Amino acid sequence: MSRVAIFIGSDSDSDVIQEACRILEDFGVPFSLDVTSAHRSPDRTLRLVRRAEKEGAAVFIAAAGKAAHLAGVVAAHTLKPVIGVPVESAGLGGLDALLSTVQMPKGVPVSTMALGKTGAANAAYLAVQILGLSDPALRDKLSRHREDMAAAVEDSSRALREKRRRA
Amino acid sequence: MSRVAIFIGSDSDSDVIQEACRILEDFGVPFSLDVTSAHRSPDRTLRLVRRAEKEGAAVFIAAAGKAAHLAGVVAAHTLKPVIGVPVESAGLGGLDALLSTVQMPKGVPVSTMALGKTGAANAAYLAVQILGLSDPALRDKLSRHREDMAAAVEDSSRALREKRRRA
Amino acid sequence: MSRVAIFIGSDSDSDVIQEACRILEDFGVPFSLDVTSAHRSPDRTLRLVRRAEKEGAAVFIAAAGKAAHLAGVVAAHTLKPVIGVPVESAGLGGLDALLSTVQMPKGVPVSTMALGKTGAANAAYLAVQILGLSDPALRDKLSRHREDMAAAVEDSSRALREKRRRA
Amino acid sequence: MSRVAIFIGSDSDSDVIQEACRILEDFGVPFSLDVTSAHRSPDRTLRLVRRAEKEGAAVFIAAAGKAAHLAGVVAAHTLKPVIGVPVESAGLGGLDALLSTVQMPKGVPVSTMALGKTGAANAAYLAVQILGLSDPALRDKLSRHREDMAAAVEDSSRALREKRRRA
Amino acid sequence: MSRVAIFIGSDSDSDVIQEACRILEDFGVPFSLDVTSAHRSPDRTLRLVRRAEKEGAAVFIAAAGKAAHLAGVVAAHTLKPVIGVPVESAGLGGLDALLSTVQMPKGVPVSTMALGKTGAANAAYLAVQILGLSDPALRDKLSRHREDMAAAVEDSSRALREKRRRA
Amino acid sequence: MSRVAIFIGSDSDSDVIQEACRILEDFGVPFSLDVTSAHRSPDRTLRLVRRAEKEGAAVFIAAAGKAAHLAGVVAAHTLKPVIGVPVESAGLGGLDALLSTVQMPKGVPVSTMALGKTGAANAAYLAVQILGLSDPALRDKLSRHREDMAAAVEDSSRALREKRRRA
Amino acid sequence: MSRVAIFIGSDSDSDVIQEACRILEDFGVPFSLDVTSAHRSPDRTLRLVRRAEKEGAAVFIAAAGKAAHLAGVVAAHTLKPVIGVPVESAGLGGLDALLSTVQMPKGVPVSTMALGKTGAANAAYLAVQILGLSDPALRDKLSRHREDMAAAVEDSSRALREKRRRA
Amino acid sequence: MSRVAIFIGSDSDSDVIQEACRILEDFGVPFSLDVTSAHRSPDRTLRLVRRAEKEGAAVFIAAAGKAAHLAGVVAAHTLKPVIGVPVESAGLGGLDALLSTVQMPKGVPVSTMALGKTGAANAAYLAVQILGLSDPALRDKLSRHREDMAAAVEDSSRALREKRRRA
Repeated sequence: MSRVAIFIGSDSDSDVIQEACRILEDFGVPFSLDVTSAHRSPDRTLRLVRRAEKEGAAVFIAAAGKAAHLAGVVAAHTLKPVIGVPVESAGLGGLDALLSTVQMPKGVPVSTMALGKTGAANAAYLAVQILGLSDPALRDKLSRHREDMAAAVEDSSRALREKRRRA
Repeated sequence: MSRVAIFIGSDSDSDVIQEACRILEDFGVPFSLDVTSAHRSPDRTLRLVRRAEKEGAAVFIAAAGKAAHLAGVVAAHTLKPVIGVPVESAGLGGLDALLSTVQMPKGVPVSTMALGKTGAANAAYLAVQILGLSDPALRDKLSRHREDMAAAVEDSSRALREKRRRA
Repeated sequence: MSRVAIFIGSDSDSDVIQEACRILEDFGVPFSLDVTSAHRSPDRTLRLVRRAEKEGAAVFIAAAGKAAHLAGVVAAHTLKPVIGVPVESAGLGGLDALLSTVQMPKGVPVSTMALGKTGAANAAYLAVQILGLSDPALRDKLSRHREDMAAAVEDSSRALREKRRRA
Repeated sequence: MSRVAIFIGSDSDSDVIQEACRILEDFGVPFSLDVTSAHRSPDRTLRLVRRAEKEGAAVFIAAAGKAAHLAGVVAAHTLKPVIGVPVESAGLGGLDALLSTVQMPKGVPVSTMALGKTGAANAAYLAVQILGLSDPALRDKLSRHREDMAAAVEDSSRALREKRRRA
Repeated sequence: MSRVAIFIGSDSDSDVIQEACRILEDFGVPFSLDVTSAHRSPDRTLRLVRRAEKEGAAVFIAAAGKAAHLAGVVAAHTLKPVIGVPVESAGLGGLDALLSTVQMPKGVPVSTMALGKTGAANAAYLAVQILGLSDPALRDKLSRHREDMAAAVEDSSRALREKRRRA
Repeated sequence: MSRVAIFIGSDSDSDVIQEACRILEDFGVPFSLDVTSAHRSPDRTLRLVRRAEKEGAAVFIAAAGKAAHLAGVVAAHTLKPVIGVPVESAGLGGLDALLSTVQMPKGVPVSTMALGKTGAANAAYLAVQILGLSDPALRDKLSRHREDMAAAVEDSSRALREKRRRA
Repeated sequence: MSRVAIFIGSDSDSDVIQEACRILEDFGVPFSLDVTSAHRSPDRTLRLVRRAEKEGAAVFIAAAGKAAHLAGVVAAHTLKPVIGVPVESAGLGGLDALLSTVQMPKGVPVSTMALGKTGAANAAYLAVQILGLSDPALRDKLSRHREDMAAAVEDSSRALREKRRRA
Repeated sequence: MSRVAIFIGSDSDSDVIQEACRILEDFGVPFSLDVTSAHRSPDRTLRLVRRAEKEGAAVFIAAAGKAAHLAGVVAAHTLKPVIGVPVESAGLGGLDALLSTVQMPKGVPVSTMALGKTGAANAAYLAVQILGLSDPALRDKLSRHREDMAAAVEDSSRALREKRRRA
């Protein structure tokens, strides 16, 4: 059973989504990962959405670049929350993917994250937040993780000061 | 008890958020609505986040324009999903609000919607989708609503053809 | 039998597509016009693509705004040329629709036109150019139309000079 | 006899257009390739358009960067479909070439593709789609190619899963 | 004899170019004004460039919107300085016209002005500056005009202070 | 004696700067207001900078649109803090003024505010903050003003809730 | 005692802020440097603002990338001048950080500098200008530094001419 | 005696301006080259403008990046044509320099070229075109150069075809 179904539009996006997988693993959230394209394999995309729903997916994550329609196509075929990760590309720097993901019409929201790896990581965190609404153990892990993050900021501050002192 | 806590950065955003309120009412989802500013009333914003959590809010919606930090500030103080609605303004047309809302750092996601009224409506729909994960009745209403939407598209197509025939 | 199948993403786009219809009528090219949404009525969109192909459509035109996926979805389900017309909207001025339409991935082209009414008119002209490749009569009409266009430019120049002289 | 006439604005664009040539060769579509500039060799551009038409070209492809006028100039001198490929450059990332190519005035459409190599490949696919309208054998090849594309997506998905399993 | 040849891409640009005409008249510089389109009347555009050169034009001004190729086409057919005025339009606000005008390839410069009416006025001033290089009387008029401009700034400052005092 | 010297690039910017004047008056900070252009009255601009310094100006505010050089020119001729207010204009919506104001080279900072009226108001607040560093009474007024702002947010929230209850 | 409190949103910004530290050291202005995040360590950020104020900070500098809220959060909790340095990142090239920093709402200004290292250096210069208002020695150093800068420009001009002569 | 006075805002722009120098040398046009900054050495900039005018400069060229005010400052102090070359920089890719250069106010035009090296080369060509208006020998050289350019395009086309044949 997978609680989160992740789709990427092309295997060139696998680098970007890596961090999302690692975070879900850290939180112990089962997930599936598939390459599928809104345009090159539209039927497969639909089949994967239906299969994921049957296998218990509560949240979808879709990462794609350029005219990034993948998240939108998934959102058109499910009533579960769909998280979109726009992927940067050369030229327009990801503005194309960002606008294609976020500017969805009324009635079919895509929960859009930041561009690239940061957005992929945050897609995982948001999925955990959503699943945590009905899972106290997950919520506790999230809470500890937030504290660790704040502590890490403090550590890096100390390290920087240390480094400057020695320089 | 409010399941969704809505914040707007200024009362000039109340027009934009209207539709979100109407949709939540239609779905029978209890919500609260407050004006609070990330910058002009930062302490109040924190107090409202804590109060909303105590009163049972599972999802936050924050709408703001320009350097739209409201959703980000809320997200920094809760582990619940936070939905951001960037509001258009003259000049940069909302690109400022969109980027300020969506480009959140790793660890603190804001689920970003489309600009303006469309985004406000979709924030409500996404909140319903999230709450629907553990509420079968809400899920059923969503499902019927999707069918109505598709039917409405068909109706408007028929109406358009009719209008052209007469013209 | 319709040689061109036109889809618009919402009846609010009917104003934009008007000129395309008028031009196809002027050239005597039979066409169909339907409202259908990539996101709100995805199944209907597929059905319409299949029906149009059966009824002899050689070219598709799809006009949509914001995260304009309609042309892309059509292109994913047909091997016929698909012409996309990005529609302006408030805020980002149509840059979202333009990038969502044009930045298609390898293998699934969308022939993208200018924004708005100009693009809608040109979608019709391009459809006529494509159909004209195997229709000498249509080609002749196009040729005459080009000459008329050039003559109209000359007329407007004369009118302007006349107006300035009198002023 | 060449069915497709390809023009590039400068030999620095030859890398970008490569893929278009390869695809046309794969589909067995005869084409010509010439360097010509809308601005530095305007007369030559006109001569090449006329020659290409005489030699049977049904479709034009023009790739250029910056103030990319090449496709527009070709479109002003032919009634055949003209496909424009905007080429990225440093600085503005190709937004200049994209807007210069796509924002054509009413009456003279340029069928605009995505930026760079993706757009060049898609220019070839669109040319094949247009030629396929009156060439059943070409249509069959296109149809098989689409299936291969979908299969390739599935393969890359399997490969990714395999790779993750081993890691 | 016209020293400056002005072309506008469409009669809808006549409003924008008005101010350029008025300024040239004020400076006593003879000019011609024609509507001609790079795309809809390419042959006419060439004819007009040649005729203008024969009639003594030393400077060209071309105003156009969207994929504004008019100045570039003129520059490709003359060795005289060509001044381009990008015209705003709805949607992209003139960024398309600006980039299409300014990003010319090496060897064929277009002297680009600000967007719209300001740019049209400045095109006239620049033409006067260029003609003034070999016309001392014109140079004197320019010099006086600059002083008047500075005086006008001072006047408006006084008027503003006066207005505030009374308020 | 004026503690703040305000310059606007044209009397069409007087509307924008209004609010800055009102705020400085409310805080009892003496200021001067002059129209002067970096380009049309460069000598006057220099004279005004020198005069303002002599008359005790500690902070400069400069508001201008388009290629907004006014603040930069002032900053090049003083060592006092210079606050720049970019003014929106049609077309590019003020992005031109914003970038021209903020992207100053190393060594000559311009303290850039938000676009338009909001930025003008904030220029006044920042001037008060800077002057307040050595003026405890001003600091107290600022402090009370901040509290009033927070209270105003709370009032508008109450008013909105009231309005919704009645609706 | 620190007169300037510098915050960076992540230790990856320490490279950017380096130059600001060096300049403050050159001018003999005591400062503190801490890593703290508006979103990952919001409580720490508040504590640091309060501590800095107690320890005598007169000016704050905050550097951050993407949805750069750090300067805004600091500005919401102090009445001292806050200088924001937007940091570039891949993809949108810093436009996100620039708009998130500069487009602050009325009442809570952030004095925004240029992107990246240039902006960091200028944040230090602006801090020195502000502190110099009540510190004649600092003002003198600034004045000499400006002269050195002008002399350095002249030197580089000579060096360039020299280099060209030899080439 | 220098007919063209070239200014660059910093020695880091010397690479960009190189090509302009080479072209002016090829055409035998005497020019001067100086580094001077609108902001860091404003007095020097004025002195250089006056000196250049005395020494016979008929055209100014100014290249600068970011908030590129150099050309504008020069234009404010001369009645000769001023050509601006916006220089790309990291982050915003030169859009800042382009808008700062081109969006000049009414009355003070800057003749703006393309970004970077292409624009620098074209600044030289435009200077030659302007000087050529009263110098038939220069005009002849320009005319031959245009023919060479067209021939070079043809050569590169032949070379490309040759290369493809061999591959």
